[in-house]
Amino acid sequence: MMYGYYKAGRLDQEVVFDLFYRVNPCGNGFVVFAGLEQAVLYLMTLRFTEEEIAYLRQTNLFDEGFLGELAQFRFTGTVHAVSEGTVVFPYEPLLRIEGRLFELQLIESALLCFVNHQSLIATKATRMKLAAQTILFDDGGAISDFGLRRAQNRDASIFGARAAFIGGCSSTSNVAAGFYFGIPVAGTQAHSWIQSFPSELEAFRAYRDAYPDQTVLLVDTYNVLRSGVPNAITVGLELRKEGRDLLGIRIDSGDLAYLSKEARKRLDEAGFTETKIIASDDLDEDTIRDLILQGAAIDAWGVGTALITAKDCPALGGVYKLSAEKVDARYIPKIKVSENPQKVTNPGKKKWVRFYVNERANADLIMLDEEPVPAGEAVTLFDPIHTYKQKTITHYRVREMLQPIIVNGQMVYELPELIEIRAYAEKELRSIPSETLRLKNPHVHHVDLSRELWQLKQKLVQSARM
Amino acid sequence: MMYGYYKAGRLDQEVVFDLFYRVNPCGNGFVVFAGLEQAVLYLMTLRFTEEEIAYLRQTNLFDEGFLGELAQFRFTGTVHAVSEGTVVFPYEPLLRIEGRLFELQLIESALLCFVNHQSLIATKATRMKLAAQTILFDDGGAISDFGLRRAQNRDASIFGARAAFIGGCSSTSNVAAGFYFGIPVAGTQAHSWIQSFPSELEAFRAYRDAYPDQTVLLVDTYNVLRSGVPNAITVGLELRKEGRDLLGIRIDSGDLAYLSKEARKRLDEAGFTETKIIASDDLDEDTIRDLILQGAAIDAWGVGTALITAKDCPALGGVYKLSAEKVDARYIPKIKVSENPQKVTNPGKKKWVRFYVNERANADLIMLDEEPVPAGEAVTLFDPIHTYKQKTITHYRVREMLQPIIVNGQMVYELPELIEIRAYAEKELRSIPSETLRLKNPHVHHVDLSRELWQLKQKLVQSARM
Repeated sequence: MMYGYYKAGRLDQEVVFDLFYRVNPCGNGFVVFAGLEQAVLYLMTLRFTEEEIAYLRQTNLFDEGFLGELAQFRFTGTVHAVSEGTVVFPYEPLLRIEGRLFELQLIESALLCFVNHQSLIATKATRMKLAAQTILFDDGGAISDFGLRRAQNRDASIFGARAAFIGGCSSTSNVAAGFYFGIPVAGTQAHSWIQSFPSELEAFRAYRDAYPDQTVLLVDTYNVLRSGVPNAITVGLELRKEGRDLLGIRIDSGDLAYLSKEARKRLDEAGFTETKIIASDDLDEDTIRDLILQGAAIDAWGVGTALITAKDCPALGGVYKLSAEKVDARYIPKIKVSENPQKVTNPGKKKWVRFYVNERANADLIMLDEEPVPAGEAVTLFDPIHTYKQKTITHYRVREMLQPIIVNGQMVYELPELIEIRAYAEKELRSIPSETLRLKNPHVHHVDLSRELWQLKQKLVQSARM
Repeated sequence: MMYGYYKAGRLDQEVVFDLFYRVNPCGNGFVVFAGLEQAVLYLMTLRFTEEEIAYLRQTNLFDEGFLGELAQFRFTGTVHAVSEGTVVFPYEPLLRIEGRLFELQLIESALLCFVNHQSLIATKATRMKLAAQTILFDDGGAISDFGLRRAQNRDASIFGARAAFIGGCSSTSNVAAGFYFGIPVAGTQAHSWIQSFPSELEAFRAYRDAYPDQTVLLVDTYNVLRSGVPNAITVGLELRKEGRDLLGIRIDSGDLAYLSKEARKRLDEAGFTETKIIASDDLDEDTIRDLILQGAAIDAWGVGTALITAKDCPALGGVYKLSAEKVDARYIPKIKVSENPQKVTNPGKKKWVRFYVNERANADLIMLDEEPVPAGEAVTLFDPIHTYKQKTITHYRVREMLQPIIVNGQMVYELPELIEIRAYAEKELRSIPSETLRLKNPHVHHVDLSRELWQLKQKLVQSARM
């Protein structure tokens, strides 16, 4: 397509694209936006190497003028985006990008790939975290990412661990993710560790010798209650003599509700009331919630496949759509009409705001960029499909959601530390009504269009029909 | 765990690990093995950088002796594996790795990540390809990977495109995968291309001007039959005047069965009988098969999310298990017993063979490495669980499946070209009975254990029970 624009002499056509998604994944009521840092670093470093240009040359599809354009390619556009960790909803522009058609076309797939992936995994991690908490945002059970071996290749494991941390995970077993992003690394031993020693007890002792202050023992290699827990208690008593304690045990198979309760009883009887019980074994948010409802004595959850691949919903369907084109220094709104009404885009260069009532997110409003942001006066919102559904809000705080990240190719945004993003994401979740956070059949958050935008859309839809 | 082995003085313990999986993904009857090249290149280049060691040092978990071991880390083990593109079944060792416990423990997660991911996507692509073919292995419809924007980050898009090509895809829209692996790159324009021109016809003409010999036009931006197809025919007639032809049209929404048949009729009426119709829009193997059964006039299929994420089954559950330990120059078989009988491992250093009868794969046999391979004499195979189920085969060809890849840290295997791997995978599929290739409820291929291995396993299970 870039070559097509080049041949049509339209490289420098100024345009606006929106990146947004249409449907919340996994039956969730929202998405936790993530992947901005990766997208921004990509844009700021995007170049074509000589080797890449040589490859394109030998395809015999492109002329030399075009390859010359690629050789000097730099991203010179302007990006507005919401912060990583923001709770977002369908149709809201997550990134709004202005610039040369040539550049904005090139970056489409990479931006979508990064944002779709990280936002999906952050959202999935939030679902796990919400499921693990008997009382919302109470301390609840910690979730650890154990997904490396089942991730869809290396980047998915590393950026997936990052996104999972944003979404509420406490740690990862992926040391590379620890190295790149400073995520706390946690792990225990595998069954192969236990097997590789003459006996389970010797295996436990050897692990204790390596990590005396962080001894977590895998107790299900032979038999949890007849062998694993008694041997763990033996090692725990030995640790006691050194003035230390047994940090935890991990159960990775069998009935986790029954086994955890029995193990808790025996640990408590032996005086190990502070020793944590960690559960793993193909866990997902449904199983976590069910185990909690059954009174399982589980303090922390190791989650693998279901988290790192978002197993039941492994793709977020984010899209990247043209919304406006500059003609004589004016933005001309563009629309995509479709047989499928859900796929009709919102035209024009846009911004969006969130209304808070009593510090809870009440509704979001997408509006044209030139419209003034409501500032205290009563606002009447209406559903963009069923327009008779209206509500008026009066005592609200309003917040503009898009902020400048890159302006004319220059970074104007300081990328926050990962730990800050995670804290912000938690704050965001606290601002969302609990009905919207429900894991099944959540309340649908209001995302409305301003009257001006709605009217523009109707007009363009009409004129696009033939 | 590496640190634990170091502290226990067991770094140099010689061991054997098997990499295998237990359950075919996606309801399929087999897996197409892929990811070996990535695994091998990883092993041959694995090093700890100074920066990585500094990171590990500041965790305060490890002593300097251990960090010194890491600094000089090289993979010195021996790897046997099946070739990429081989059709494999549950419990068969796909890689068998011998070497120092220290090294073999480190590589577990990366090997699993690469092999699980690529084997999964190759298998999914094969399902698409089988669905698209009205007659098995007839030319059938081409499948193109359109998944980049929905891939689970960058590696998943690139190695996923590679695996999809092995599994039978004809091309990818991912130019980076073309660059790295020489996969044919194919694409058309997006809706945003059409939108960015004043009219659909002008957009079509501009695309034709860029790719006069490869003009494929997206016809569903406004209305397939009233606008897209008539405009495509107009451009096709213009191409005709230059002595060229219209290569194809793409339909990305609406009822693909109805629209493709109507579009075919109109293209044929206008003399464009050679113009291909390409379909896309959230396709998977079920939809492809249904559309073919409904007589859709579709020549090629662009598949995105369902392929690149293996949407309904996004992880292959490959595992990596200790099978033997060397003591005084002898391999002592090891077993993992589990509450779940499916999780009990096959002990010992093993190899496996495939029996062909009339050039079709008839059964596979896993055996101990020291056992002689059957060579013409009648062989009686029995089901390892329901041992009364037996069969005797006589006129067979036998093939040893594991071959040496790395010996004592040195590559002894020439990595085949990707195009060779793809051709081999197709040959492999032709050797599998069609009942086993069925997409739903396939015949279960026999994977049996030799009597010697079976008896060893029974003995070790008994002695492991307490």
